[in-house]
Order: sequence, then structure tokens, then C-alpha cells
Amino acid sequence: MTQTASRNTRPESEDPQTLVETLAREARLAQRQLAAMTSAQRAAALHLAADRLEAAAPAILTANARDIAAGEARGLAKAMIDRLALDEARLAGIAAAVRAVADLPDPVGQVIDQSEQPNGLRFQRIRVPVGTIGIIYESRPNVTADAATLCVRAGNAVLLRGGSEAVFSNRAIHAALVEGLVEGGVPAEAVQLIPTQDRAAVGAMLGAAGLIDMIVPRGGKSLVARVQADARVPVLAHLDGINHTYIHAAADPVMAQDIALNAKLRRTGICGAMETLLVDADYPKAAELVAALIDKGCEVRGDERIRLLDDRVIPASANDWDTEYLDAVLSVAMVDGLDAALAHIARHSSGHTDAIVTSDDAAAERFLTEVDSAIVMHNASSQFADGGEFGLGAEIGIATGRLHARGPVALEGLTTYKWQVRGQGQTRP
Amino acid sequence: MTQTASRNTRPESEDPQTLVETLAREARLAQRQLAAMTSAQRAAALHLAADRLEAAAPAILTANARDIAAGEARGLAKAMIDRLALDEARLAGIAAAVRAVADLPDPVGQVIDQSEQPNGLRFQRIRVPVGTIGIIYESRPNVTADAATLCVRAGNAVLLRGGSEAVFSNRAIHAALVEGLVEGGVPAEAVQLIPTQDRAAVGAMLGAAGLIDMIVPRGGKSLVARVQADARVPVLAHLDGINHTYIHAAADPVMAQDIALNAKLRRTGICGAMETLLVDADYPKAAELVAALIDKGCEVRGDERIRLLDDRVIPASANDWDTEYLDAVLSVAMVDGLDAALAHIARHSSGHTDAIVTSDDAAAERFLTEVDSAIVMHNASSQFADGGEFGLGAEIGIATGRLHARGPVALEGLTTYKWQVRGQGQTRP
Repeated sequence: MTQTASRNTRPESEDPQTLVETLAREARLAQRQLAAMTSAQRAAALHLAADRLEAAAPAILTANARDIAAGEARGLAKAMIDRLALDEARLAGIAAAVRAVADLPDPVGQVIDQSEQPNGLRFQRIRVPVGTIGIIYESRPNVTADAATLCVRAGNAVLLRGGSEAVFSNRAIHAALVEGLVEGGVPAEAVQLIPTQDRAAVGAMLGAAGLIDMIVPRGGKSLVARVQADARVPVLAHLDGINHTYIHAAADPVMAQDIALNAKLRRTGICGAMETLLVDADYPKAAELVAALIDKGCEVRGDERIRLLDDRVIPASANDWDTEYLDAVLSVAMVDGLDAALAHIARHSSGHTDAIVTSDDAAAERFLTEVDSAIVMHNASSQFADGGEFGLGAEIGIATGRLHARGPVALEGLTTYKWQVRGQGQTRP
Repeated sequence: MTQTASRNTRPESEDPQTLVETLAREARLAQRQLAAMTSAQRAAALHLAADRLEAAAPAILTANARDIAAGEARGLAKAMIDRLALDEARLAGIAAAVRAVADLPDPVGQVIDQSEQPNGLRFQRIRVPVGTIGIIYESRPNVTADAATLCVRAGNAVLLRGGSEAVFSNRAIHAALVEGLVEGGVPAEAVQLIPTQDRAAVGAMLGAAGLIDMIVPRGGKSLVARVQADARVPVLAHLDGINHTYIHAAADPVMAQDIALNAKLRRTGICGAMETLLVDADYPKAAELVAALIDKGCEVRGDERIRLLDDRVIPASANDWDTEYLDAVLSVAMVDGLDAALAHIARHSSGHTDAIVTSDDAAAERFLTEVDSAIVMHNASSQFADGGEFGLGAEIGIATGRLHARGPVALEGLTTYKWQVRGQGQTRP
């Protein structure tokens, strides 16, 4: 609380880089205290934070109304205003999500493996928090609570940098959250909202190697691209979800159509949406499949053989195979067998989620083994690419990088490990 | 083999960046083939490589003699020549190490965990190779074989960039290795030695995000610092091993002295060597401990209270607490209890290996929990910080970063995972 007070009296003139570095140093110290708390203590503090979020509903909604008014005055798009807007029900949902994460099993302290050497040395790898996490996000104010909660559950300090559209909402949510956390014994400096909207603060976070251990961007492609390009700190993120569904020759036609329609059209704007459909040349119901997609309002951009199936297919250009539409638009290619499908995916997939539909288990196993994406699926819709659907309880994001964590990243991805070695006086010969 | 031929005929004028990118693309394609081989096939290929290394001994020793002659002509330090020099015994050791890694259990394909959701979707996380690894190393030619072998065992392609002092030795070892691997069905492009000594090739490797998945530098501090500063690709490494041993008040004096002498003096030049000794103010045999170190030829730089123990102690300057000597020099501080030791370590440790000597188990457990280093030890010499000593069979390096892998990194650290999802036609509601 002392340091919170000092932060409030910090001179306005402080440059963003010095500010971010100071906050990160405070966060690192607070993280040591947070890590020394028991799992039950962290969970209890998160429950108090959820209570405070509910109790602060009037203040949060007032702050949110201020953001919305400012957004409308600035002519923000309606979709953006929607993402920004809170009401009693949404706030209750945010508090419920905090409680759900508080009740998730704590990965910290888990023994990953253990062994003993002939000399009697005993080795254990145990999970520990990553440390200090930076979250850089856009309009949705719920990220303030969601991301902070996941970080704290796994013993991490967090520096939150929200979008300027949601500045008052974020401050109100953050204040309520921290009030509850502090009541539960978490140092206030463990969960910090960067107090300036100066864009240089984002650059300072991205450059804070050694002070921030990991950055998670949450937002649109331009935000993620900037973070990936400029960060000197490791980043967990995905840039694109160019996801393929391959309808194998031995696919059940009813299942193939259900999955294709769901993968593309259930929600077209999420990163798990299918963007390219690969239809095997030996799949007997290709024309029906393409027609069903178009009938449901999907624009189909096809290669030459797909165009022969339906007059309404638009010719695909070379770019289409590398495009994430996030809309009711789909590129469709006909492929000659599993090897051709694998080759297309190896060339064009963004490594997020790729699926095969087939009743041939051998083909499915080859696909699951050889496709080198974070998530590979057999007979399921790519729209399941989500930490909640995977049983992880929540997710901080989906990662398409190859190191540390891939696919939906939840509490375990917010931990690392250390080696504990127990001896009885051993010296090395 | 075709591509090897094409590589040999590549024009000399090709710029290093284009060259590295071309080689990395070839490596990525070859990695898919390597990953599709069975574990037994990869192991068998590595045994063939070991055979070829032994059979090529005359050629390798001739090449090595050429490097040594060039090094001596250039006035290379004797220690450097020693690191460079091969003989029949060292070569046999290299081949034996290749066979030992070939026989290690393969992490690829291991199921990390699995679960089933109420909707019937089944989830498995399985280990897969990281992809293409870049190794940037200095004089020791054995790294060519050691690093390549570890990468291939775990299904990774590897781009090797050795030091100019060992260029002929590295080429001869690489040629023998690849001959055996190709005989065993591994594509030649999976194990490549960068064919130019142009330093721009290192820069090209460090910048090859998306083509190289991970860089492991093997060499001195200036090499590691450059790699960490410039890399756009994730790096697994340690810069410093500023390792502490804390002699707690309840340490057994015989054990404390044995461990301190071993941790500092067994080999002073390795990254696991102790660099700072913390002696508790209540430890009764502090003077004897300091005297024993000095008697064994160690220069002791102490704080004020340590200087009172022995006339031969040199005053420590502020820099000493952050210095990795890699020599028979030790900084020694007296600390008032466990909390003071933890605070000193939190401030000065490089996060490599820190140890406590005590017969008080509660103090030991607090130390093992609260010290946030890759390796924490109780009653053991920090010189055990080594993958072989940890039972990992071999190591590609020791990592002090916080993500992906920490401490000794062996085969598992050269893998990542993917999610395999098996359904029966599920679509997301």
C-alpha cells in the first residue's frame, strides 16, 4: 500500500520508459511476496477481488458510460462500442470468471518429475511462476480482470496496459480488483495498470527484457504484429489463424458437412474459425458440401476443380490460400489424397488449428502426427480451439510459437519450473 | 543427396543472408522427413554416424592438425589450442557420446497428459521436435557432433555455425557424421554446417525468425551476450553463472568445508562453479572455512566482517558481488540469517545455481522454495550443475532464461508439444 501511495504522488512528468521500469521493478518485488503465499491464500484473495468487483458495479458502470460517451463522440465503430460496453450481467460474468479461475487447481509447486542418481542426489523439477507478465490489450475491459486473475492464480505479477477507449472502465475494474486482492494479502504492486496512455509505454514494456518475463498481446492483428516485431521480451501469441479442414475421401458426408459449416460459420470472427477447406478429389459429395456452404451465406473462393462443382464459386487467387478472412468467406481447394493435403497445409497453415474429417483411422493418425500445428483435430470443428473447450478453465491466449507453450495457454503456460536438488554433502569427483 | 550436391555447386558469391535462409529452408523440409522417421530409425542412423566418425579418424585428425597449425601461426593462446586439439582418444570419446545419445529414451511422441471432455472430445498433448535449431559455437570441434546428435535424436534439423579456428576439423566431423546419417535414412539437409566463415552468417541466423526456431550459443560470455542482444529467434543460454553457496548457522562444518572447496576449486572455469560464498554470522567455523579456502590457493575477497577472520582476505569492492571470476577467486560475505542470505541472492544471483548447506531441513526447504534460480541445491556442490550429473544423459546447454526450459537442457528441451484432439463429429454449440 505504501508503494501505491508513492505511485499516486509520482510526478506527471516522468517519462514512460522510466515509469514502466519503475513499475516493473515494484512488480518483481511484489511477485516474490505473491509466490510465497500459499495456493489457498491466493485463491481466497481472488474471491475477495470478485466480491469487490460486484460491490463496485455502480462505479464501474459509471466509468464505462464515460468511456462509451467518449467513444461515441470520437465516432468509434458500433462493433467497438459493443466490445467496450458493460452492464450488470456482463459484470456478473466477469466476477464469476474470477471465481472460476480462483477455484482452478494451482499448478505452482507441482512436481513435474523426480529422480535419484547413484550418488544419492535427488532431483525434482517443480513448477514455479514465470514471474512478471505484461498484458497489452485493446478495447474489451473484461481482459483487465481475466488476465490479472490468471496471472495471480499462478503466482505472477502483472503489468496491464489496456486500450485508451476503455481507460476509465479499466481503472475502475483494476481499482476494485486490487482492493480485494490487498484485503487478501496480495501486495498492490503485484497487479498494476500502467497509468499513462502514452504509446511510448507500450514500447517500454516490449523492451523491458529482464524486468518483464513474458508479454501476452490480446487484440487485433496489427497489435499482435507490432508486439511480435518490436518485443525484446518473449511473446506468447498468435498472429493468424489460417486453419484448414481436410475432408478426406473416407469422410462421412453428414459429419463432413456439419463440421465444415460449424468450423466456418458458427462464429466467423474468432481465431479458431476455418479459413481454408481442402476437399479430397475422391470425396464423393464435394458438390453438395460446396453448395451447402454457399446456401448458408458463405462466399466460396475455389480453385479450378472446385469451380466446376458450382457456378456460384468465385475464382481463388494465389493470396487466398494465405488469407485469414475472419468473415463468411472461405477458400476451397481440391487435393489429390492425404499427401497433397499435408503438403498444402505445411505450406499455408499458420500453425494454429488444422483438422481432418475421415472414418479412416490410419489416415487420421497420419494427419495428427504429421501436421505440425499447435492443435490438430480429427472429426471435430476447429471452433473448439479454446482453452475453456479444452478443459483448461480459462485461457490467457492461444500461442502459435513453438517454444514454452502452444495452443490454448492457461495456468500451466504461466508457470515455468526450477530444479530442486537435495544432497547429503555430495561433492563432485 | 541432390540438395547436398546443389549446395556444393552454389556460387561463392551468394551473400550470407541468402545462403543462411536457403539452408534453413532446406533444413525445415528435411526436418519433416526426420520427424516422420521412427525413434529406432533415428537411433540407428546415429549409430551409423558414430561408426563413420571412427572410420574417418585419419581424415579428421589431418584436418585438425591443419587447424592447429593455422592457430599456432596466428598465435592462438595455448588454452585455445588445447580446446581445439583432437587425438584418437578424444575422437573415440566423441563417437561414444554419439552412441550414448542415440541410446537415450526418445522424448518425441511421449504423451504429456490427456483428458476427455463431457462432449466426448479427447485431448492429448504429445511431444514433438522444436523444429530447426541453430547452434553457434566456438573452438571445441566436439560440439559439431554433440549438438547435432542431440538435435537429431529429438527429431530436429540443425544448422551448425562453428568457430573459424576449427573450420577444417568441423568440416571433417560434419562430413563423417552426415555420411552415417544419410546411410541411416536421414536427409543430409537435416544437419548442415554453415559453409562460410563470414560473420554476417551469424547475424543472418540470429535474424531468421520463422526459419530457425531456437538458437543455442555455446561459447564464451561475449558470444552469448552478442547472441542474446541481437537474436530475433528465441535463445536458450546462460550468460553468467554467479552462483552462491550459503553456509547456514546449522551447517555441518566438515560438510560445509568439503562443499565450499569443491564448489569453488574442483574446476574454476565452469559455469557451475561457486562465485560467492555467504557465511551466516552464527556459523561457528567461519574462520576455519575462510582459512581452508585460502590455504588451497583461493583468493578470498571479503566484506568487513570476513576480513576480521583472516589477515589474508582482500577487501571486496561493490563489483565483486556481481562478478563471475571463473578462476580461483571468491567473494565472501557474512550474512545475518536466512532472510539476509535470500535477499543477497535475490539481488546478485544470475539465476543459474544457488546452494544452501545446513542440517536444518526447514531452512533448507525455505531456501529451495524461495530462491528463484534455475537450480537450487541443498547440501551439494554447485559443480553438479550439469546435464550428465542430473541423469539427462547429455546437455545442449544450461539455460537461465525463465521460459521453455531452465537449468541443464537435454532432449526434452529440444522438444515442444502439440495438442491432438480426437472427436466423433463434434461441432461447437
